[in-house]
Formats: sequence, structure tokens, C-alpha cells
Amino acid sequence: MQNSEKSSRRRILGIGAALGGTLLAAENTPGQLGAPLGPYSDRSPFEKAVRWRRDSKTPETGSSFTPLQDSVGTVTPSSLHYERHHAGIPTIDPERHRLVIHGMVDRPLSLTVAEIRRLPSVSRTLVLECGGNSGSEWQAKTAPDVQRSHGLASCSEWTGVPLSLLLSESGIQSGAGWLIAEGADACRMERSIPIAKALDNVLLAYGQNGEALRPAQGYPLRLIIPGWEGNSNVKWLQRLRVTDQPYMARDETSKYTDLMPDGKARIFTFQMEAKSVITFPSGGQRLPGPGLYELTGLAWSGRGRIERVEITTDGGQSWVDARLQEPRLPIAFTRFRLPWRFEGREAVIASRATDESGYIQPSREALIEARGTNSGYHYNGIKLWKAHADGTVTNVEV
Amino acid sequence: MQNSEKSSRRRILGIGAALGGTLLAAENTPGQLGAPLGPYSDRSPFEKAVRWRRDSKTPETGSSFTPLQDSVGTVTPSSLHYERHHAGIPTIDPERHRLVIHGMVDRPLSLTVAEIRRLPSVSRTLVLECGGNSGSEWQAKTAPDVQRSHGLASCSEWTGVPLSLLLSESGIQSGAGWLIAEGADACRMERSIPIAKALDNVLLAYGQNGEALRPAQGYPLRLIIPGWEGNSNVKWLQRLRVTDQPYMARDETSKYTDLMPDGKARIFTFQMEAKSVITFPSGGQRLPGPGLYELTGLAWSGRGRIERVEITTDGGQSWVDARLQEPRLPIAFTRFRLPWRFEGREAVIASRATDESGYIQPSREALIEARGTNSGYHYNGIKLWKAHADGTVTNVEV
Repeated sequence: MQNSEKSSRRRILGIGAALGGTLLAAENTPGQLGAPLGPYSDRSPFEKAVRWRRDSKTPETGSSFTPLQDSVGTVTPSSLHYERHHAGIPTIDPERHRLVIHGMVDRPLSLTVAEIRRLPSVSRTLVLECGGNSGSEWQAKTAPDVQRSHGLASCSEWTGVPLSLLLSESGIQSGAGWLIAEGADACRMERSIPIAKALDNVLLAYGQNGEALRPAQGYPLRLIIPGWEGNSNVKWLQRLRVTDQPYMARDETSKYTDLMPDGKARIFTFQMEAKSVITFPSGGQRLPGPGLYELTGLAWSGRGRIERVEITTDGGQSWVDARLQEPRLPIAFTRFRLPWRFEGREAVIASRATDESGYIQPSREALIEARGTNSGYHYNGIKLWKAHADGTVTNVEV
Repeated sequence: MQNSEKSSRRRILGIGAALGGTLLAAENTPGQLGAPLGPYSDRSPFEKAVRWRRDSKTPETGSSFTPLQDSVGTVTPSSLHYERHHAGIPTIDPERHRLVIHGMVDRPLSLTVAEIRRLPSVSRTLVLECGGNSGSEWQAKTAPDVQRSHGLASCSEWTGVPLSLLLSESGIQSGAGWLIAEGADACRMERSIPIAKALDNVLLAYGQNGEALRPAQGYPLRLIIPGWEGNSNVKWLQRLRVTDQPYMARDETSKYTDLMPDGKARIFTFQMEAKSVITFPSGGQRLPGPGLYELTGLAWSGRGRIERVEITTDGGQSWVDARLQEPRLPIAFTRFRLPWRFEGREAVIASRATDESGYIQPSREALIEARGTNSGYHYNGIKLWKAHADGTVTNVEV
């Protein structure tokens, strides 16, 4: 055994430099002990992916974007979940935090986090997408990479208590139609949620990807509203007020409204539609040469499961079905993949998603035909990338 | 709107001290801006869960345990995935790392990580469990908490290339029966894998929970062998040698063998069986008083899906079915939950899992009847916790 092993090693390593390098060094260098076992570990120092944000004098407000170009699989690492804050990330002691439920209820409640964690809970893997994700794409000068074009979407396993349970405990009074959710950030951000949705499938979440929510995601409590724009998933939740009408907060009158071609604005457009984007190869990446690659990306829909993703590599003349990673969970990232041979010639590539409602992701042209170019929010058009003959990949200005 | 809101706030806050505290302070204190948007974020400073390990003069070798008592949902945070290292965690530059496939193959290969990442890939959520997990439970003095009794099991979404693809590319020669996998740690840990399993569903993984593998989990490449003991899932993989017989490495002769009552040892016992444990309430935790709680825990099986988890709260006299979190993925953590009223009286609680093969998790007595108490590895007996009248929870010595 020992002899045949040594002879085998010599034979293979004898092939030459192509096989040598690191492996040969490893054979000849006495092994050095590595790092010790640790209490809580970090990623490799060779991994550099970070969220991107615009330079700003007020970095407490704004957006930072998930590096989707580096994503693998379907879950977003909590450390890289996109951010959209309006007054910075508060530091909240969970032992002092309270959630108050009041307004048109029979029994107003003030709950501690520990009390909430004793209640029956569920876990759901769900995508969260900012209503303003891909806002860049309304303009002719589209975003140069997938982080800036689509990075305000992330996917986590959320754990929490069905909100219906707490509302039932409080006893909603007749005539109530809305729930005003308020965060504990400095601006006390508020959004109005229809009671029907709150009773349907909304979660009062305290867990994210197996541990407590991250501070940037609302620690210790946030709303998770499956399929609805991120802004309504209020973070650092401290108050739920049951009312007969919406609050008409800044983020539902001035912002998160869709300006239509006729000059009127749509309001309370919570629902996110089917969408997809190729993450590799995508703008800013470079194919090292002609050959076989795995083309891959992400698809999702606020209305349920992704049923189909089609890929074009010839600018939309022909489409083929990509392979979809199972399990395809409703309102979650679905990873799609397709082997693709890059011939060293220019190729315009794109993906098109269909969800279980039958809705097909529209072209940019069809979307603008319906909504003009001033909508600002809820862009879900097909995103084109151009692979150039030299292997560089860019956006396509339109 | 403003007036009715203010009046509503006064009415509720007027209920008194029980509703006051933090919320009242928040109302009266001008909001302070929180922390800015960041590139890569950490957990809350109030969250303290860490892996546990024995004090050791050689912390480069040993085990550290996932804090399952603090787990929520089904995924393990990568920072808290259990560790079992034999010579520390090497720091590997992915640009210099190579995977060599050689031995009884037609075309020996040396592959870069970038080349591997171009190949067709898949993602699977899988539990990884050390063959030695729950080794403490063979003894009458069982482990005092779930971290030490069951914390050598964790669950991640792994992404990588089916190993069958690379083996097919290399061309396995007739007569080959085994694959010797070698890590790039200082001890170059090796394990022998039957070719049939390697061709079935083994992954050459580079991704974990949406990003690159963590260094403690084999960065940049490791084997993921669904359902088989953790030790065979070789980390920092640098070599696969195809042979006609196993290597008989230290970790398959001296270690990771099961000593039976007749003095003989079982070898190559890769398969992990169905298992479950209650994570709340569990040893070391304390119920603040009588009342309604959610009893919860984790179940898994190396053979497939979990079909059923039963709970006893009277020391095994009666069992009721727990609610299982969907989707129940094969060979993954399945979260189970059951509302439970603690009456302030002593209660012995336990869970019992059944997997899709029909296998039922055995009692500790049945397991010892079959295997004696010197097995060391592959303990999957039912774990009892005792809730005492004062709310403290302990292990049960047997």
C-alpha cells in the first residue's frame, strides 16, 4: 500500500509544471499547523465582496446593494443583505424593547421580545426587494453591473410569529382596515398595511438565517410581508396601530409611489412582480477566453413560485429554457443555470422569468410603453448584458 | 389624522408603567441618527452565542460545537457551523490552490478553483454531522446541554459541482473501487470513499450559504457527501486519487470506527441515521414560570426526509406529533414545534424522529442493547431533558 502510493505520486507529479506548483510545494514543505478552533468565525481574507453605496455626506440614509455578481446558491449571507435606511441603524437592547399593539383593538398589548419568542412560530425563505430596485433601468443609461441594477434584492430564511396570532389576541374592532407599523429608528419610519394582508401571511420576525435578525435588518423585531415591497417590511418594529384609514406617511405619498405617463401617481403599489437577471456573466466581469461556461442568475416573484426562466444569447432572437434549482420556494430566489459556449464573438444575453400566476417578465420596451419612464419604482424589465469579443461584459445602453 | 393619532397615543400610554419604559422614552427623546450603511455587517452586540470547545493546549485539533440552544429555523449561520479539525485551519489562496485527480484514471487532471467554478453546478441544503456527535451520551453521565450533546451537527446550503462530472472527465479505469480524498491541512487528512458513492451524489463544494465556503469549512474546496459522517467530507480538498482499495488511514482504522460489545470494531460506517433533539427547553435553560411555551427542536436523517417527530412531556408514557416546518428537505435539518403548557411541575421531555425509510430513532436503552457502550461514534438515541418545578432544565443521568 505504502509503496504503490509513493510510486503513484511520483508518476503523476512527474507529468511536469502543469501539475506542479502548489501541489509540489505542499508535498515538500513540512505542514504548518493552521489557525485554532474559534468561537465565531469570519470569511476568508481572500473574499472581498461587499455591499456598494454611493458616496454620501449622510450615510445614515440611503441604500447599499448586495453583490449579486458574487452570489452562489439561493440564500443571501446576512452580512451582505441589502440595506435601505432612513435614519441609520439603531442599537436596540432586546431586554428593553417593547412592541405595542393598540388603536382599534379590544385589548391593547405591550410585549417583550422574550414573550414573543415563546409564541408559536414559523420559518419561511423569502426574497425581500426594495420597491426602488432597478430604478436605474428606467433611464437610457442603465446600470453598469448587476449589483447596481438589481442588488436591492436579497433572500433569507426568516423566523417569527404569524402576525394574525397577535392581532387575534388583541381583538380587532369592527371598522378597522389598516395597520400602521412604526419602527424605532430616529425617524420612526411608518407604513400603512391593509388589515387583510396582515391577517393573511405577515410574519413578526425575530430570526434570520438561523440566528437573530441582524441590526441592519431590524433587530430585534421586523415585519416580513411576503411578496410586498421592502419598505413596507418595517424594521425595528415598536408599534402597530390598528386604524380605519392609512397614515399617508411620507413613504407612501411622496416616496414609493409610481408616477404614470398621464402625470397621476399610483399609490400603495405593494406587490412585487416576477423578475430575473443573469449574475454571471454580467457587467464588469470578464470571460478569460472562448470556451464552456455556466451561465447563471436569479429569478423571483412576489406572487409565488418561478415556473420557467428562458435565456437568450443572441439578443432575443431565440430563447431556451434554463435549468431551475429545486426546491423552487414561493417568493424566494430561484437559481437558474445553463451551460453556454462563448465563441469569442459578441453576444447579447438576457433572462426572462415566468411565475406560477402565468405572468411573464416584460421587455424594457413593453414596460415603458405601459408606465412611461418616470415611474421610479417597481422596474422588472428584462436586463440585457453584452459579452464582447475580448471577453469583457458590459451593460447595454438603450 | 394628526389629532386622532395623538389622542390615541395618549390613551394607550396612559395605561401606566406596564406600557411605559422604553416606548415612553422613545416618544420623548429626540431621535438620534443610528449607524451608517456598511459594506459587510455583523450581528448585534447583544447576541453572544458562540461555539463551545474544551480548554486545550492544542486548539488546532479538536471539536467546537454549534450553540443549538440558540438556533432558530433550519439553517446554521456559517460563523457558528461546528468545527472538527486535525491540524488547524489553513489559509489558502484560491488562485494558487489546485485539485489533482489521478490514480486509476485515463486522464489525470489538475484544476484551478476558477476552472471548477465554470462547470455546471447545483445547490443542496444538507446537514453535516460529525460521526462522533453525541459521543457523550454513551456514558451514564450525559452532556448537560444540547450544545455539548448534539452541537456537532449543522445545516447549510452547499453549492458546487457534481463529483461524477469530474470523474467522468478523468475517465475511471476498470477495477477502480475507491477514491482517496486528501486535504491541504498540515496533516493532509485523508479518507477513502467508495467510487459508487462518489458517482452517486457527492458534491465538490465551493459555496456555503450564498458565499464562498468559510475557511473553517474547507475554503476554497471541500467534499460534501450527503448523509455520511462529517469526517468523510474532506475539507481544503487538494487531491483525489482513484484506487482499487481503501487507504486505511488513521481516521478509518484508529478513529471513526465503532467498537462493538464483542470486542470487534465496525469500520467504514459512513451512514448517519435518523436523530432528533429538543433545543428549547433544553439543559441549562430556565422557564421563567408556568405558562404556554413553544417546545421546539431539530430532526434529521442521513437517509432522506423526516416524516414524523413525536414528543413526550411525561417521560415516554405518551407521545404526540409535533408540527414539522416545510419544506422538509432530504438530509437537512427539519425544525419541529409544539405548543406546551408548563404547569410548574417536574416534566421529562424528549423527541423521537422517524425518517422516510421508516426507521425510528431508538431509545438509549435499545441502542446500548445493540451496540454496548464503547461504540464512541454514531449515537442517535432519544435525548431526555428534565424541566424541574422551579423552571430549571437539566439533563437526565441514566
